[in-house]
Amino acid sequence: MKRFDITLPGVTKIDGGVCAPKGFSAAGIHAGIKHSLGDSVPTMNDPAKKDLALVYCDTRCKAAAVYTTNAVKASCIEVTQAHIADGYARGIIVNSGNANACNADGREKAEAMCEAAAKALGVESTDMIVASTGVIGQVLPIKPIERAVPILAQNLNSESGSDAADAIMTTDTVRKELAVEFELSGHTVRMGGMCKGSGMIHPNMATMLCFITTDAAISREMLRKALRSAVGDSFNMVSVDGDTSTNDTLAVLASMQAGNKVITTPGADYDKFAAVLKDLCIALSREIARDGEGATRLVVCTVREAKFAQTAKVIAKSVITSSLFKAMIFGADANWGRVLCAMGYSGESFDPAKVSITFSSSAGSILTCENGSGVLFSETDAKEILSADEIYVDITLGEGSESATAFGCDLTYDYVKINGDYRS
Amino acid sequence: MKRFDITLPGVTKIDGGVCAPKGFSAAGIHAGIKHSLGDSVPTMNDPAKKDLALVYCDTRCKAAAVYTTNAVKASCIEVTQAHIADGYARGIIVNSGNANACNADGREKAEAMCEAAAKALGVESTDMIVASTGVIGQVLPIKPIERAVPILAQNLNSESGSDAADAIMTTDTVRKELAVEFELSGHTVRMGGMCKGSGMIHPNMATMLCFITTDAAISREMLRKALRSAVGDSFNMVSVDGDTSTNDTLAVLASMQAGNKVITTPGADYDKFAAVLKDLCIALSREIARDGEGATRLVVCTVREAKFAQTAKVIAKSVITSSLFKAMIFGADANWGRVLCAMGYSGESFDPAKVSITFSSSAGSILTCENGSGVLFSETDAKEILSADEIYVDITLGEGSESATAFGCDLTYDYVKINGDYRS
Repeated sequence: MKRFDITLPGVTKIDGGVCAPKGFSAAGIHAGIKHSLGDSVPTMNDPAKKDLALVYCDTRCKAAAVYTTNAVKASCIEVTQAHIADGYARGIIVNSGNANACNADGREKAEAMCEAAAKALGVESTDMIVASTGVIGQVLPIKPIERAVPILAQNLNSESGSDAADAIMTTDTVRKELAVEFELSGHTVRMGGMCKGSGMIHPNMATMLCFITTDAAISREMLRKALRSAVGDSFNMVSVDGDTSTNDTLAVLASMQAGNKVITTPGADYDKFAAVLKDLCIALSREIARDGEGATRLVVCTVREAKFAQTAKVIAKSVITSSLFKAMIFGADANWGRVLCAMGYSGESFDPAKVSITFSSSAGSILTCENGSGVLFSETDAKEILSADEIYVDITLGEGSESATAFGCDLTYDYVKINGDYRS
Repeated sequence: MKRFDITLPGVTKIDGGVCAPKGFSAAGIHAGIKHSLGDSVPTMNDPAKKDLALVYCDTRCKAAAVYTTNAVKASCIEVTQAHIADGYARGIIVNSGNANACNADGREKAEAMCEAAAKALGVESTDMIVASTGVIGQVLPIKPIERAVPILAQNLNSESGSDAADAIMTTDTVRKELAVEFELSGHTVRMGGMCKGSGMIHPNMATMLCFITTDAAISREMLRKALRSAVGDSFNMVSVDGDTSTNDTLAVLASMQAGNKVITTPGADYDKFAAVLKDLCIALSREIARDGEGATRLVVCTVREAKFAQTAKVIAKSVITSSLFKAMIFGADANWGRVLCAMGYSGESFDPAKVSITFSSSAGSILTCENGSGVLFSETDAKEILSADEIYVDITLGEGSESATAFGCDLTYDYVKINGDYRS
């Protein structure tokens, strides 16, 4: 599977990330949030890791978002929820290097970020979406942000989507952005996205930030419906380490500038828009799994022939979340009993005696378990198959026709190393 | 906290493990289950890792047991359940090196283990408890077991509890056995236990085997009641890696030989017996956490001032199960935000703004979070405190008076190494 692969017919990958759709511009800068710049003024050409991103639309956008399910929510989430309660937004401000979560002054700081951005952009503060990512429980330094925002606003342009994507990264090793083009009612529509996240990632939107822009004309209700549907099969099917963060946010902005007939009801146009949004979300979330902290392999686990879709989803997620399974993938060891074990404690009911488990990759395919018991297989072949960069685990339950796919990665020494001293 | 610490007043630690109570004898041997002995006859003085244990009582015992909650259960569990359905047992046979789980002939093999033991001991096959631990999905070789059992039976004695405890170990690095003595209605009563488990360990009885013997006279109903109560605060509060195995079994045998007035109803005697059983289970399960695969530190997480006991339990378990938290403990990094984050996704409701978090160890104590926000603390002190062998995480919710304690360990390079290639 190619990186950032898009498989839908009639959909073309294009450049530009979140700036690809009409109306959007962006910028990213090193503001000095984690490592203070002291008295120095931030500059656009500072080669240090960018830590502040601004995305702006020249018209008011329809907005929809989903958030972490963690009961401990970062203050930026409360603020964003309040700001887009009316269904509209004009821009997004995001910092990395500090989560602004579990801080007594968190809400105040999140509002201050919006105010600084709104002032520089000449928009209402309540039209700003705000997000933060980084260490929990450290007071967010607001000065570096307030100092950098006017510079960012002056330098907004439609070529800088990648700078914004860079600025939201934390332990990510690969920039994650993607844009596509497709047709709706005879008009070219564009959709772009950027996301970050590699640790504290788990089904249900965990330390993951994703921002999607589109110039499609669509009602708020249809946008929300498409977003909910997309998330269930993409970001909520990813796990890096089973931890669900306090800050996860996925927001979509629609500038309405593409000229297509406004999507206000279900139908062919809505179906196409929703399919593209889902495919883009799957492509982005798969890259999050591939770039999991310390990961050396992407794992794609598909559960087939389930009685219910929910059963397939829960079992697939249980497998990719298991530490023992993940360590086994790291060791390229075809210990399929751990797959069956993780299925068993998923809480879903199925008949173990009907289960088959196949491992495959670019190096081939091998059946390891049939009707719940082991079958003879070549350990040499299995080792070769499991040593590839992408591992597919196919599980059939033999009980129905529903299926689901989850995305994960292996558990490595580097995961432990990265998380043993994340704050330094 | 000392290893295998027992804190109840009036309870004395003694030697002998499962053989300490009247009526019991045991033996352990290297039968060659994982690594075949070929044509060689097993011998009691073979220095190789013991892999077969036999425990025997010279009278019929009251028996009670609890098992894994995994939907995929090893065949030995079905057989044990059937055998003690009448409430009685005479002996226990356990092998390590092979889980006999997910095998088409698993049930047949588990029955064959009981039959071999019963024949050698001159008891009914249905009076045997059987358990297996090791790799899932590999056919159990029954010949080495059938060949070794008569030798084990001939060598049973009351000094060999440790040999049986050695034989049930897999990746454990420390033998886990314990025995105590206390008084009931003027008679000395003894209780002994052995257990194993270091990977695939998680609340709800995961790849954990524990066998407890006592000479107390007690009815089956009271024995079951005491066991259920003990497990809820001990083995079900341990997590090494979040994986729940297919084979977990905790069985208690009461030989009735101590001479105490038979415990048939709630009251002072029952309370004392139940308290000792719980303390013994906590002491054993704490050692399982301490000896977690690759672990360098024991973590004891206590949640206080919860509205409900269940809330305290679920939150404590969520914290010790978090990979991010565990990696942070390995790195001796006081990143308390990860504690609050793991509390938040536990699914329990609480007010984050009332939470306080303190880390302590033999090196001191440090408050890191108060009323849901960080407080200033010395990173140097925190590092020293978290570098100890035993780390205490104390969380107060400020909402009630219930509390619970969970036992875990850190996530280390060695955990990944051990589980990257467990089968070799």
